[in-house]
Amino acid sequence: MLDAPEKTTAWLTDDEVRLLDAHWRAANYLAVGQIYLMANPLLTEPLRPEHVKPRLLGHWGTTPGLNLVHTHLNRVIKARDQDALCVWGPGHGGPAVLANSWLEGSYSETYPDVSRDAPGMGRLFRQFSFPGGVPSHVAPETPGSIHEGGELGYSLSHAYGAALDHPDLLVACVIGDGEAETGPLATSWHSNKFLDPVHDGAVLPILHLNGYKIANPTVLARLPESELDDLLRGYGHAPLHVAGDDPATVHRALAQAMDTALDRIAMIQRAARHDGAAERPRWPVIVLRTPKGWTGPAEVDSLPVEGTWRSHQVPLPAVRQNPEHLRQLESWMRSYGPQQLFDEQGRPRPEVLACVPQGAKRLGATPYANGGLRLRELPMPPLERYAVPVEGPGRTTHEPTRVLGDLLEEVMRATAGSRNFRLLGADETASNRLQAVYGASGKAWQEQQLPVDEDLDRHGRVMEILSEHTCQGWLEGYLLTGRHGLFASYEAFAHIVDSMVNQHIKWLRVTRRLPWRASIASLNYLLTSHVWRQDHNGFSHQDPGFVDHILNKSPEVVRVYLPPDTNTLLSTADHVLRSRDYVNVVVAGKQPCFDWLTLDEANAHCARGAGIWHWAGNEDGTREPDVVLASAGDVPTQETLAAVRLLRTHLPELAVRMVNVVDLARLLPQEEHPHGMSGADYDALFTRDKPVIFAYHGYPWLIHRLAYRRAGHGHLHVRGYKEIGTTTTPFDMVVRNDLDRYRLVMDVIDRVPGLAVRAAPVRQLMEDARLRHHVWIREHGRDLPEVADWSWAR
Amino acid sequence: MLDAPEKTTAWLTDDEVRLLDAHWRAANYLAVGQIYLMANPLLTEPLRPEHVKPRLLGHWGTTPGLNLVHTHLNRVIKARDQDALCVWGPGHGGPAVLANSWLEGSYSETYPDVSRDAPGMGRLFRQFSFPGGVPSHVAPETPGSIHEGGELGYSLSHAYGAALDHPDLLVACVIGDGEAETGPLATSWHSNKFLDPVHDGAVLPILHLNGYKIANPTVLARLPESELDDLLRGYGHAPLHVAGDDPATVHRALAQAMDTALDRIAMIQRAARHDGAAERPRWPVIVLRTPKGWTGPAEVDSLPVEGTWRSHQVPLPAVRQNPEHLRQLESWMRSYGPQQLFDEQGRPRPEVLACVPQGAKRLGATPYANGGLRLRELPMPPLERYAVPVEGPGRTTHEPTRVLGDLLEEVMRATAGSRNFRLLGADETASNRLQAVYGASGKAWQEQQLPVDEDLDRHGRVMEILSEHTCQGWLEGYLLTGRHGLFASYEAFAHIVDSMVNQHIKWLRVTRRLPWRASIASLNYLLTSHVWRQDHNGFSHQDPGFVDHILNKSPEVVRVYLPPDTNTLLSTADHVLRSRDYVNVVVAGKQPCFDWLTLDEANAHCARGAGIWHWAGNEDGTREPDVVLASAGDVPTQETLAAVRLLRTHLPELAVRMVNVVDLARLLPQEEHPHGMSGADYDALFTRDKPVIFAYHGYPWLIHRLAYRRAGHGHLHVRGYKEIGTTTTPFDMVVRNDLDRYRLVMDVIDRVPGLAVRAAPVRQLMEDARLRHHVWIREHGRDLPEVADWSWAR
Repeated sequence: MLDAPEKTTAWLTDDEVRLLDAHWRAANYLAVGQIYLMANPLLTEPLRPEHVKPRLLGHWGTTPGLNLVHTHLNRVIKARDQDALCVWGPGHGGPAVLANSWLEGSYSETYPDVSRDAPGMGRLFRQFSFPGGVPSHVAPETPGSIHEGGELGYSLSHAYGAALDHPDLLVACVIGDGEAETGPLATSWHSNKFLDPVHDGAVLPILHLNGYKIANPTVLARLPESELDDLLRGYGHAPLHVAGDDPATVHRALAQAMDTALDRIAMIQRAARHDGAAERPRWPVIVLRTPKGWTGPAEVDSLPVEGTWRSHQVPLPAVRQNPEHLRQLESWMRSYGPQQLFDEQGRPRPEVLACVPQGAKRLGATPYANGGLRLRELPMPPLERYAVPVEGPGRTTHEPTRVLGDLLEEVMRATAGSRNFRLLGADETASNRLQAVYGASGKAWQEQQLPVDEDLDRHGRVMEILSEHTCQGWLEGYLLTGRHGLFASYEAFAHIVDSMVNQHIKWLRVTRRLPWRASIASLNYLLTSHVWRQDHNGFSHQDPGFVDHILNKSPEVVRVYLPPDTNTLLSTADHVLRSRDYVNVVVAGKQPCFDWLTLDEANAHCARGAGIWHWAGNEDGTREPDVVLASAGDVPTQETLAAVRLLRTHLPELAVRMVNVVDLARLLPQEEHPHGMSGADYDALFTRDKPVIFAYHGYPWLIHRLAYRRAGHGHLHVRGYKEIGTTTTPFDMVVRNDLDRYRLVMDVIDRVPGLAVRAAPVRQLMEDARLRHHVWIREHGRDLPEVADWSWAR
Repeated sequence: MLDAPEKTTAWLTDDEVRLLDAHWRAANYLAVGQIYLMANPLLTEPLRPEHVKPRLLGHWGTTPGLNLVHTHLNRVIKARDQDALCVWGPGHGGPAVLANSWLEGSYSETYPDVSRDAPGMGRLFRQFSFPGGVPSHVAPETPGSIHEGGELGYSLSHAYGAALDHPDLLVACVIGDGEAETGPLATSWHSNKFLDPVHDGAVLPILHLNGYKIANPTVLARLPESELDDLLRGYGHAPLHVAGDDPATVHRALAQAMDTALDRIAMIQRAARHDGAAERPRWPVIVLRTPKGWTGPAEVDSLPVEGTWRSHQVPLPAVRQNPEHLRQLESWMRSYGPQQLFDEQGRPRPEVLACVPQGAKRLGATPYANGGLRLRELPMPPLERYAVPVEGPGRTTHEPTRVLGDLLEEVMRATAGSRNFRLLGADETASNRLQAVYGASGKAWQEQQLPVDEDLDRHGRVMEILSEHTCQGWLEGYLLTGRHGLFASYEAFAHIVDSMVNQHIKWLRVTRRLPWRASIASLNYLLTSHVWRQDHNGFSHQDPGFVDHILNKSPEVVRVYLPPDTNTLLSTADHVLRSRDYVNVVVAGKQPCFDWLTLDEANAHCARGAGIWHWAGNEDGTREPDVVLASAGDVPTQETLAAVRLLRTHLPELAVRMVNVVDLARLLPQEEHPHGMSGADYDALFTRDKPVIFAYHGYPWLIHRLAYRRAGHGHLHVRGYKEIGTTTTPFDMVVRNDLDRYRLVMDVIDRVPGLAVRAAPVRQLMEDARLRHHVWIREHGRDLPEVADWSWAR
């Protein structure tokens, strides 16, 4: 616990309180104005209904608290000349952050038409939640923001991600007591076990207990204070409490708490950086209890509003229609004393701005929150150094992710000085066979270490916690502040962050349209331990649907790759790690996989995204093939090539083409996705009228959803995962889902016109092979030697 | 804090320890046998390579701890004749629970071929993780299970769901220290603020700290004990610690802790039930620290294994190939003394079974874990009581979810005695306009209440916490133990539980194939506050993709409904609340919506799932229409009907058909989904060759994915949400996404052959209307009167 200094009431001079309060009142005035007014911003005339917006939208309840925190952050930033960023968890209180940005001038610098004067104030008010204006939340459009406050749960992990490898940065993070009830937030408190006081900056959580959510009290606000303290200490923090509803008292208490917290942080960092202290520090947390909707109407229509959930959105709902509401609004706004706060031109008076820091220290102007400005190229090694030698297709095998791990080790090593790359995973880095990276960096860990432990490192840049939410939040925060990273996950469990990646994609979609936002590194997923190889775990671990989820989102942002072997994985990884402003999903296995392409071939194939593998098929080039076998994904590619071999052995006169697709969006029309193929290109690969048997890694209907506009769609037959799984052998998994080589050959026979009768004996052979499989595995518990040891080269 | 009794070492007699240890050793032996052996189960001959499975799969690390807990639960259940259920969070330790079920006899009763003797033991071993056998995890196939231990995070919320409204039930819940790092688990500790000691049963969390995850130490295991205690007390629990690696000592300490915990629980329940105690109790939690892989090989290949992460899966990986591994395995298995544990016929000896309870008290035989056995019909009121009067289509409006709330109030009231229905939501029940239910039951709340609060109730059955994960977990646990419920959520935030619902669907898919599993009530979602009406929140709250996610899953389990008005919502709700073994998703708005159908019409339309609205179109019945306008969802239906009116006004000679789809799976072929339409039925609705303009609620390509096999698919043109959103007016949202009435009319003109030239002036009118809209909203901040006040009836 921190010892509180004695003389609380004397923490600030009366004059300091007066100046802070002026700033806070100005911000509150500007926030109310945004929610309500479309004219008469300075209340230079009596308020009339037509000054009020016809639709009243926004969230007042959290706003005065956010304004208070912003005011006090201004004070300490200026006093200490501190680089700082703030993550506003209750970002639905957008008016607060917009008001502060306008006050400090960063808003007008970003949007010159919203000038810091009366016309600009008018525009600030009108545009808020207005058609063609700005969103009601803290959003990409908001200067200084890296966090949309709409979907709750991710503020604290974002804050930690921003602080990693930014030793001089203070990241304040306001956590609403509503958000604190979410699972992702509840576990992200433990991020302090992964924050290195030497190389990382500091996170100052400010738990804002205003007592209510939309319609209910909050769990944390109703805990006895001692129980809440237990919880926060159990999370590894030292709590500082600030509570009250008298502004002067609260200003003093909050100023004291912030100074105490920042002094404590400075001490912790000094101890770690200069004195070599190795014990995990107990970082401060501020608990701020102020009324919901503070300074707003105490009662409306005879019901209590200030201090209750009724102030969550718009406390006076009928201002245009109800003269009493109109009167209350005017009295509320005038209570802040706008004429004392703004001069005749509507400019903030100097005393209002006394606490505001200068230039890039301002929260709305910090380059940390426009991370692309600080982004440095990732030093990618030459792929030749890691490419596996391929003397011919299918002669050798490698574990693709293991080889990728070797490459990532060099990336990790090359960024040892710049510290701008992190690898993240939910306790699965080694399980996903990327453990070579430990040669260049251990795993971040600030807790106790035991002799039996391996690869833990107080300064490590590999991040592992058994929480996909936390990994995702850390990575988003890290990327948004100008660094690089990769999240490796079991394929099925990527769905855990479906909703988080939604928000990140939306963020990127908007920022791509904002010229002042610099490009950031892409968010890269490596999905491995995939659906076809869950030998240890079975059905619960089998879900290839993350790709479907991603491909529903903005095409300008999303990319999906399924490299079929080791060298194509290297080529893909190189591409995605160099890319900007995308969410890239790479699906690749960790189990031994045949090598099909040399590095040069892999690079060419990945650059095309989809192409014919001439060495596999037997077209003579004079005419179209009889059938196209296509694949996407490592296991489907293996089965498809095995099927091609069976066809060439048993039906040598059949002209077979083999197509492999790495970049799934290639299948979309070019009008639908930047990577989409033209109709002519598609037809050149797949033909317009020949049967196409497509073996796909995931849910088969995804391929139809991508290709339904193609001329040859009626001839497209897709095999994939049909949600049939259990703990069984690898080949049994493909058989159960009708993706096995024998079934693919049968599909060809069933679909190539005129083949059914002629090839009936071959079809019978295939059925026999499937039957032999079924009998064998139940007897022997492993796959038939002929499929387990199969190779194209034999 | 609980005071620990003094004489710890004397808690059990030596004989009691001996008997418990025999049971534990027997379970450990059976677990190792499942992972390794396919023959020689009793080690009646020396172990040879061919006795060992060719593929070694499973998770040993957590298994001895689970066996220990099961043994001690047996003891207290028997001693107290207690109804109990256990949720095994580390359910990937499947061998443990299978071993215990076999020992107590429930396994052989469920699967008679796996008898409780040597041949049965042989089958038990062989079938584990073997093709055609049983999964490696605790799974639906496992007697006594309600929780798959594959995806981590949900054990504790499942346990609470099971305990709700089961006053006599004890739900033990083993939480692994890996799982404890997940977000959903971290917040689910707060479930104790919602557990009513009067009407609900008890949850006893057992936090099992074996120190390691797959490859890392765990966050909680490495906390100093005082910090962990702070955390658990902060979560509202009173911790009891058990730690050690000497079996006799641990047996005594765990027995003491369990007795103390159960005595404390009995005291809490007595105080609440008989003495009227109203203070929130501090429920006990047991912290159990035992080595990972306890009693397994201490070292393998000169590396420490017992007590480290290396024992997570299969500690001896090469038993068939490596004679030293084989020797170690045999010595390990013989260390349990199989000949002392099992008689010559392989039956457990009486002393092994001394702790096992009888009949339905056994954890593998409790009907609480086969909830369908305890399921009672939900008393559904006649819909007539709530149906809104409809004198003609589009004459009146109602808020569909508000009317549904009235119906739910009666369901809530009718179940006041049986207490077998709960309504859940993430702080959104009132926001979703279902608050009428508070008339019959308040919101569950055990924390402090203030005078300003409304509708909080210590005995309430409406559950609100700002955690979709917790709501989902509670509901799953509630349903799986034989009750009914409804989860109402903002549409966008259903994605938060994508991964959880995956697992529930997988569970249902498997249980439907198990004859001994009785049917349970469906998991019902009401998705409201949907993509088209996020007036306050904008882009972050706009995501209709949960439906896409659901429709990827097992067709026998998933159902999706989009009722277009109030009476169809009532009809749909009635249907889904009566249904069994499904996951039903109902998408319906809360904003005023035109009433289109009377209750009778609604019932008939919903029974068909899709149908022609003859009153809307102008076909003469003698020939096919010129164009079909189709819709699914409330806003698209409104826009489609407005478009139909525009067409009938401006192009009266055009024969227009209006089709509405409520049940989305109807669009699938009947071979693909039980609700799928035949080709003939589909063609009768949509025609084979006429243009179909389909206005869909969500991502438009979903409709193509469902209908791509239909004859008329080439003529199908779908409008929907294209991931374009912000804070704006309702009509602007549909305009931005090209789903508005004017665009739909233009689509018709563009697609009906021969209409382009003739209808060019009408097309221009539509373009002008869109332009007028754009100008108007930027000026006035609200929608044009002609669209805001539009009605079919005018």
